[in-house]
Amino acid sequence: MPKNQQIILDNRPTAEAVVSNFKLVSSETPALKDGQVLVRHHYLSLDPYMRGRMNDSKSYAQPQPLGEVMIGGTVGEVVESKSAKFAVGDKVVGMGGWQEYSVVDDNQMGMLRKVDTTHVPLSHYLGAVGMPGVTAWYGLVKIIEPKAGETIVVSAATGAVGSAYGALAKARGCRVVGIAGGPDKCKYAVDELGFDACVDYKLHKDAASLSKALKEACPNGIDGYFENVGGMVLDAVLLRMNAFGRIAVCGMIAGYDGQPLPLTYPALILVNRLKIQGFIVSEHMEVWPEALKELGTLVATGKLRPRESVAQGIAAAPEAFLGLLKGKNFGKQLVKLV
Amino acid sequence: MPKNQQIILDNRPTAEAVVSNFKLVSSETPALKDGQVLVRHHYLSLDPYMRGRMNDSKSYAQPQPLGEVMIGGTVGEVVESKSAKFAVGDKVVGMGGWQEYSVVDDNQMGMLRKVDTTHVPLSHYLGAVGMPGVTAWYGLVKIIEPKAGETIVVSAATGAVGSAYGALAKARGCRVVGIAGGPDKCKYAVDELGFDACVDYKLHKDAASLSKALKEACPNGIDGYFENVGGMVLDAVLLRMNAFGRIAVCGMIAGYDGQPLPLTYPALILVNRLKIQGFIVSEHMEVWPEALKELGTLVATGKLRPRESVAQGIAAAPEAFLGLLKGKNFGKQLVKLV
Repeated sequence: MPKNQQIILDNRPTAEAVVSNFKLVSSETPALKDGQVLVRHHYLSLDPYMRGRMNDSKSYAQPQPLGEVMIGGTVGEVVESKSAKFAVGDKVVGMGGWQEYSVVDDNQMGMLRKVDTTHVPLSHYLGAVGMPGVTAWYGLVKIIEPKAGETIVVSAATGAVGSAYGALAKARGCRVVGIAGGPDKCKYAVDELGFDACVDYKLHKDAASLSKALKEACPNGIDGYFENVGGMVLDAVLLRMNAFGRIAVCGMIAGYDGQPLPLTYPALILVNRLKIQGFIVSEHMEVWPEALKELGTLVATGKLRPRESVAQGIAAAPEAFLGLLKGKNFGKQLVKLV
Repeated sequence: MPKNQQIILDNRPTAEAVVSNFKLVSSETPALKDGQVLVRHHYLSLDPYMRGRMNDSKSYAQPQPLGEVMIGGTVGEVVESKSAKFAVGDKVVGMGGWQEYSVVDDNQMGMLRKVDTTHVPLSHYLGAVGMPGVTAWYGLVKIIEPKAGETIVVSAATGAVGSAYGALAKARGCRVVGIAGGPDKCKYAVDELGFDACVDYKLHKDAASLSKALKEACPNGIDGYFENVGGMVLDAVLLRMNAFGRIAVCGMIAGYDGQPLPLTYPALILVNRLKIQGFIVSEHMEVWPEALKELGTLVATGKLRPRESVAQGIAAAPEAFLGLLKGKNFGKQLVKLV
């Protein structure tokens, strides 16, 4: 029985999440029953949605229970199998949580999926060719429905969702403008991710100033926006939306801690006949095969080269996660566990 | 040549609109050219959208020019005709503006439409069987897309849009809950307009309190909301929206004067995967025939009995309009001109 290091949620944040909300514990992996496999995790995915789960409030999902292993996506390798569906050595993606190993029943539909690492590195199944990629795909294709020539904006542009969104929008003939924090990320968005322009929100201290910068980057206004951030950035974008613009709302990191951030000019929804729509990608499993196919092709052909921020070892997960919430990561935030 | 009394926009509001923004003037109606008709207005419609036009700011429509007759819908009778399309005595609906007479070219598509007053009183073509009715229809049918059994809410429930919305939603098997100001309006909504319940927002001084009252009136939550007001009411409704709820945004009266009113909890858009969509009914002329047919039938069969607030004489229009913005009207606000 290998020893399994785990991170549990020890207590809930009162305002900003802190390292002491988490606790590192250790256990033996249990003996497998029939139909079960033991997966050794190679990478753990850290994602903004986890912050919402840490609160004990009404949301679209159950709160993360105290004293249990934090929820999280993982990729890894089957190291022991009592299932006819999985063989030792299979590469798999699943929801193994913040721990080094997980035991999975093979009859839990969709909990574990074999993946092919011939053309796509294993870690990318947690990012561009995983949940974040499909999130970008759904928001762009199903909510924003872009036409060639339209101007399409995304916040957190160099993150896992943003970079996939950029590649998907470029493939549809759009002008793609990112919003990111700092000159390095903005340069990366343009030079490596193929964005047409990228605005550094850290240079602006209010929505009016950021909105002016967006006007320069989007001379024809904004037709579609993928909301990852909320707060000042959303206010600034709203001021530049064209008539009949569409906004897909997927994350509002800026509002997870403490007080909610208001939307300053809701009247613009009417003035510009906007559609604003929230979604959770796990509720739209029917699109995953189509989305993953396109995303896998973009990665395999080099049109989407997602960047990763990799923390080392399960004990580093809490600090890496808090950094993600503050935008300290540069690309998809992972924790390497082997 | 009959004398034509007119109300022009004399100066723009600096904050709240006031009577002195308007000016009553008088002119002779001009001699008709070929293809023109002279319409004597029986009723002028007063509508919240006019407040937006009074500002000189970017909006979906051009601002009302200073010194010109205020824009507005009218119904009336053709009193002189040099057009083969209209005869003296025809009852017509058009956009004649705040004046007693208008001259209309018969080749201005859609500017003048003959109506049948056999089963529908002429004035209702400015309300339930006119622009406000179609507004309710579009928001309900095309944006909210209600299913039987869902709970559907509307603010300004006894107004022209709200009362039509209520009848249309009842016809679709929904639970229909209104929000209105004062016990008389709430009683009327339930007793006369067929709402299942109506919440008096004036009994509540903040969104949290109003939201509690909505919880009682909507024990199964809110699936669709038609936004006529904005501000505190929108905040309160958002707190009660069910997952996958839809909000049609048509008016935000509360924000027309002075400072914009923020939306306090935009994160709920994500949490409850809401769709919020703004629209202007004049951009969807393709639905008018279908909508007017249903609305006309509801009125003719007594299932929609819209109430009217009627001011007397063109000089009374400014004060009646300002009252409308404050919710002083009870039902569709009209000005009777004959």
